[in-house]
Amino acid sequence: AQAFRILILPGDHVGPEVMAEALKVLDIVEECRPKLKFERTFDVVGGSSIDKHGVPITEEVLDKASKADAVLFGSVGGPEWADASPNPEAGILWLRQRLVAFANLRPCEILVPSLLEASPLKPEIVKGTKFIVVRENCGGAYFGDKVEKPEIASDLWVYKPDEVERCARVSAAVARILGRTGDGKGGGGPAIVWSADKANVLASGRLWRRVTQDTFTREFPDIELRHQLADSMAMLMVKNPRGFNGVIHTDNTFGDILSDISGGIVGSLGTLPSASISGIPGQGRCNGIYEPVHGSAPDIAGKGIVNPVAQILSLAMLLRYSCVLSDEASAIEKAVETVFDSKEAGGLGIRTRDMGGEAGTEEVGDAIAGEL
Amino acid sequence: AQAFRILILPGDHVGPEVMAEALKVLDIVEECRPKLKFERTFDVVGGSSIDKHGVPITEEVLDKASKADAVLFGSVGGPEWADASPNPEAGILWLRQRLVAFANLRPCEILVPSLLEASPLKPEIVKGTKFIVVRENCGGAYFGDKVEKPEIASDLWVYKPDEVERCARVSAAVARILGRTGDGKGGGGPAIVWSADKANVLASGRLWRRVTQDTFTREFPDIELRHQLADSMAMLMVKNPRGFNGVIHTDNTFGDILSDISGGIVGSLGTLPSASISGIPGQGRCNGIYEPVHGSAPDIAGKGIVNPVAQILSLAMLLRYSCVLSDEASAIEKAVETVFDSKEAGGLGIRTRDMGGEAGTEEVGDAIAGEL
Ligand SMILES: CC(C)[C@H](C(=O)O)[C@@H](O)C(=O)O
Ligand SMILES: CC(C)[C@H](C(=O)O)[C@@H](O)C(=O)O
Repeated sequence: AQAFRILILPGDHVGPEVMAEALKVLDIVEECRPKLKFERTFDVVGGSSIDKHGVPITEEVLDKASKADAVLFGSVGGPEWADASPNPEAGILWLRQRLVAFANLRPCEILVPSLLEASPLKPEIVKGTKFIVVRENCGGAYFGDKVEKPEIASDLWVYKPDEVERCARVSAAVARILGRTGDGKGGGGPAIVWSADKANVLASGRLWRRVTQDTFTREFPDIELRHQLADSMAMLMVKNPRGFNGVIHTDNTFGDILSDISGGIVGSLGTLPSASISGIPGQGRCNGIYEPVHGSAPDIAGKGIVNPVAQILSLAMLLRYSCVLSDEASAIEKAVETVFDSKEAGGLGIRTRDMGGEAGTEEVGDAIAGEL
Repeated sequence: AQAFRILILPGDHVGPEVMAEALKVLDIVEECRPKLKFERTFDVVGGSSIDKHGVPITEEVLDKASKADAVLFGSVGGPEWADASPNPEAGILWLRQRLVAFANLRPCEILVPSLLEASPLKPEIVKGTKFIVVRENCGGAYFGDKVEKPEIASDLWVYKPDEVERCARVSAAVARILGRTGDGKGGGGPAIVWSADKANVLASGRLWRRVTQDTFTREFPDIELRHQLADSMAMLMVKNPRGFNGVIHTDNTFGDILSDISGGIVGSLGTLPSASISGIPGQGRCNGIYEPVHGSAPDIAGKGIVNPVAQILSLAMLLRYSCVLSDEASAIEKAVETVFDSKEAGGLGIRTRDMGGEAGTEEVGDAIAGEL
């Protein structure tokens, strides 16, 4: 038997709603696999934590998180805390830093063909797109020293070689798992890794490029590495997203923007999960934070209409990366696809409104749980 | 009679090819308007300057530029100078800094309906898109203090209030000129200004937001200002570009990426001009640098197939912003549209290959000049 301690932080607004559906799915996984035990602990984060404790995350919760095997995170923030300082989002930044969850993985993929409709891109352009953005998550401008005075404000965009190196190792490991064929089993050999930087203007960008290149040359000579300027990358991702099938390896700031472009390409954030991990995939268990790419969506909270799929797929990533349970992860991913592709609603499948469907949050969660 | 001193810096690879066509157009403007005199001076920049002088731009050229009324710039860089330090691109950075060309304007628009085909976006999504990105051009991470050692590298992402304020004034002025109806005459009142930052994580982003808001509240209370996080902006620009019709006001780094997303939306950089200006539009003449958004495209250089339209439209921007000759600028823009829309080539108009046409660089330049 294997036991995993999962810290569950639903957060604000739609956070608890989508979390409830992910937990239904986790219940089923446990039922089907009697040898697996998931110890669930619940706590507050974000605005809910500000209301209760005055800070977006308490030391106690950070401590629990670092002792857990993984953290399943909902979403935080909202207009109520617009003037809070630190803001609810600081909760997630502190958590990333405490767990040294240095690599943020964001898959971009159109899950089933009928979802091509939801994309703003022409179907022939976006069809077959399948890449993962690996964003450095604990360094760069978002974590560098800050100066904040009325007459000047600055953030230090800083990298040391080991920060880039460990992220490069994650990108390489993900490229091996994804494979050229995108089958998630390394089919066709490792996927291409595209490294995005601004080596033409940034000192930190030149370090990024040099250390990435050195790490690949030394440790992963079998993987094809290509360097691309981050600005032209942004353009090409829109023009020809399939051209980047594989892994996009990039720093915190550029990764923030480029991974949101992925959301634009897919057309909806409602299905996009993310993982922030503290170790190298394929080298055993590692702690991590798993959360939807979307935010807390105060405008639709409490209506039972939010799409729970991003949270459910985040749970799948948790099982894959923190628990090394890839069969269970794949089963969830397959169940999501089946539900989207089901014959219901005139062949549109069971989907929430953001995906052109009419189903509610619970209905989608129940269908996915049922499919397992 | 009015005289203008124009410094012409064709640069590398396709630079001289596209410049030749823009100069044809300038000749025609001068012929048609005998009272206008353009004194042309030519010099080298980028790789060509490295080859000749060992630096991407000489003090002498910087000096000439600062004494000119405007600089018409081609494009720089190429694999020959991959290891040059400073690199050819530094030529443009130094030039921006010397002229204090603090606002970079990049219009994004599908010029004629038949160009919808070139966009990767569905026509119903991209149709009617018309915005201008105003990117802060002399501050932020690209110009902040750098540390570059083997064991650490950093760039200081720094802003002072006056840098943000002057850029906000340009954004406001552009919003007035563009107008809600996008007619370039302020029709329907000033366009909306969207300010993009990461105020949720960056100290410099909070300063950006605060100073922008204060400047608008104080000086432009009639203009609608909306703040947006830069990451979600990137996503929404792809999902619904029309939603940002108006002016996008943003810092150097985010502007670099967001303006390249514009290129992705349009589908080709071949028609996109840019202006880097040192004053407020509508408040008289100001020096500026006018250049295509595209690079030096070594792969197609010397073949006579590069699209000269971005350079020609950059000349139109030069006439509008540095010379305050908006009728002449509009005439060039109209001529470009007419040539694209002409009945030739089975209704496709006269276009280069990147736009699905078969015309060469000179043919397009001649057609536009002829149309004037
Ligand atoms: C909420 C914010 C601090 C965060 C980030 O910028 O990292 C978010 O945008 C993300 O991408 O996860
Ligand atoms: C060439 C480079 C320095 C430049 C920049 O990043 O500013 C370019 O990408 C641009 O956008 O004009």
